[in-house]
Amino acid sequence: MASYRHTIDGAGQARSEADTPSSRVMRFGLDQPLRLDSGQLIAPLQIGYQTYGMLNADRSNAILVCHALTGDQHVASDNPVTGKPGWWETVVGPGKPIDTNRFFVICSNVVGGCMGSTGPASTNPETGEPYGLALPLITIPDMVRAQAMLVDALGIDQLFCVAGGSMGGMQVLQWAVAYPERVFTALPIATGPRHSSQNIAFHEVGRQAIMADPDWLAGRYLAEGTSPRKGLAVARMAAHITYMSDEGLHRKFGRNLQDRDRVAFGFDADFQIESYLRHQGLTFVERFDANSYLYVTRAMDYFDIAADYGGRLANAFMGSKTRFCIVSFTSDWLFPTVESKTVVRALNASGASVSFVEIETDRGHDAFLLDEPVLFASIRGFLSSAAAARWK
Amino acid sequence: MASYRHTIDGAGQARSEADTPSSRVMRFGLDQPLRLDSGQLIAPLQIGYQTYGMLNADRSNAILVCHALTGDQHVASDNPVTGKPGWWETVVGPGKPIDTNRFFVICSNVVGGCMGSTGPASTNPETGEPYGLALPLITIPDMVRAQAMLVDALGIDQLFCVAGGSMGGMQVLQWAVAYPERVFTALPIATGPRHSSQNIAFHEVGRQAIMADPDWLAGRYLAEGTSPRKGLAVARMAAHITYMSDEGLHRKFGRNLQDRDRVAFGFDADFQIESYLRHQGLTFVERFDANSYLYVTRAMDYFDIAADYGGRLANAFMGSKTRFCIVSFTSDWLFPTVESKTVVRALNASGASVSFVEIETDRGHDAFLLDEPVLFASIRGFLSSAAAARWK
Repeated sequence: MASYRHTIDGAGQARSEADTPSSRVMRFGLDQPLRLDSGQLIAPLQIGYQTYGMLNADRSNAILVCHALTGDQHVASDNPVTGKPGWWETVVGPGKPIDTNRFFVICSNVVGGCMGSTGPASTNPETGEPYGLALPLITIPDMVRAQAMLVDALGIDQLFCVAGGSMGGMQVLQWAVAYPERVFTALPIATGPRHSSQNIAFHEVGRQAIMADPDWLAGRYLAEGTSPRKGLAVARMAAHITYMSDEGLHRKFGRNLQDRDRVAFGFDADFQIESYLRHQGLTFVERFDANSYLYVTRAMDYFDIAADYGGRLANAFMGSKTRFCIVSFTSDWLFPTVESKTVVRALNASGASVSFVEIETDRGHDAFLLDEPVLFASIRGFLSSAAAARWK
Repeated sequence: MASYRHTIDGAGQARSEADTPSSRVMRFGLDQPLRLDSGQLIAPLQIGYQTYGMLNADRSNAILVCHALTGDQHVASDNPVTGKPGWWETVVGPGKPIDTNRFFVICSNVVGGCMGSTGPASTNPETGEPYGLALPLITIPDMVRAQAMLVDALGIDQLFCVAGGSMGGMQVLQWAVAYPERVFTALPIATGPRHSSQNIAFHEVGRQAIMADPDWLAGRYLAEGTSPRKGLAVARMAAHITYMSDEGLHRKFGRNLQDRDRVAFGFDADFQIESYLRHQGLTFVERFDANSYLYVTRAMDYFDIAADYGGRLANAFMGSKTRFCIVSFTSDWLFPTVESKTVVRALNASGASVSFVEIETDRGHDAFLLDEPVLFASIRGFLSSAAAARWK
């Protein structure tokens, strides 16, 4: 796959670019801090990212893909930590719905994450030790502001599309609100304009599970050489249930037992669903930092676009020329269709261009990551039609 | 309130009755073991229970109320541990829908529980120490078998009604299947004929949270003088979300902050829903035993009536003369209406007498414990009509 090489120009001395064995990295110096919603600054700032495809001559074919809660920049190539394929290889790649033969795709690890961007596991310049909880809180607008710095550094004015699901979809909406002129099309999938009370509740359970682990050590575990693995695994298990649907679980697992004819009358994993969940918890702790989990869940909790617009979501999109395609899934109860419809209504009220697709599936929230032909066709169709308008 | 005093008869030497400061207690000796589904026995066996109202001369006016996961026998009188009113005082009492001026109400703590019935915190006669995980696994049929021993000891052949919600409703269904001649009417509320895959998943998260707590000590915490409070609190928080509905949480808490105008940019309880959940977790650990939580959740997981009837639920009820009233709540996603309808269909297929009430509410699963006038009217009407048939 062809890949774009960025050249540092004369004005960019404050930033530098590097390839680590696992990722491309953009570094911003002390004179280019990330300004946070909390009023605090992060400097120096580092952003881990990947690109796919070639940027065209007028730099107009870039698509920014935004990842979900525990995703990363490895959207369409093997993940160096897990060795598994990229998390959206069904959607992004040559000939895929987001076609890297045609588009230049950028995906960056969110600030607060743990895959190369500045996060709680990064070194705190004031102490020389990992930040831990000394890292200021991060919001979705902060994540997007950092992405804009990266996009600037790559010399791109307008993105042809910003796309993503779940927390990635929140970033898409935030891009469209914060930088309407820079977003030609927006594709928010399985997301909403704010985090619901129930979703905050589930996140709080996960955070409490981590913080209850004595190896968490008030966030200082990296410096102390411990790891709150059990707490993080429980957090992941609880969250994972919310990514699936009752019907999907029934179809996939039902009450099937593990290699047995009858129940074992014990507390080992007796049902297949238990074994599956435990596996999800155990593999997750191998690839994710517990403090990052606290930071990114909190960012989602705080997300509420309308709050900055007098509680009226439509005001956030007023005058926008961005073309939107909103996608939801019928069995998604984490971001149910009603959340997407709220966005659609606001976009209609603000006079924006919007299409809306609700996809019938029993695979719940995770459907955006799975083999969903209607999703693929929707993305392909939306981008084709937008490309025809953009390059007519 | 009048209360019934049981007299031990000559044949009952193997059992004895006592009043502790907190509960009435029925004890069964070594020659009257509880036979468990696992094939194991529990002896001696103790059952903590309460009664309300007067048993009539022909012992035909008894109603057994079955409690839910973390409930107890204190259905209509102050709870001695929490000092709070009984958990169903809206439904049970003089002049209430289950009218103790008319009916003799029995409620017993389930076997495996921690409020006076034999459970993992009880003394293991073989070691003189708390059972912990040495207590054999308990099932819903085991709980019901123990209740039948209590009802026998109270000299009652047929119960006018067996009623309960959630896990209590599972016991109601099990009573109707195991002892159809002894159940004149059955009132299962917000329940189902089996525990779903998603429900097993949530229980497994709770158990893993408890077992991840280093103070759990493989269940030996009572003997060692520790307590897995943090793990149990996380388990309760996760479970508590499933007792409410998305809409109900939105109405009650929304994204309201704690006494602040703006977010605090931190990990303290910032939203009211977080504070509420933490409070639920903290108060729960004051009143509930962590190992009991493992046992009773497991009992629910194992529940599957149809499994013993070739997978055909209707066969379980064939020939039943019991009158059923099934109640569900529209926003209950732990035991959604479809589960109740499965029972209704099976009862219809078996030719049983059944009425079905689906109650419109946004209060989720917990609605059966709350002030729900339609529920009260349904119970009152169902019992009145059955009483007219019983004593015509």
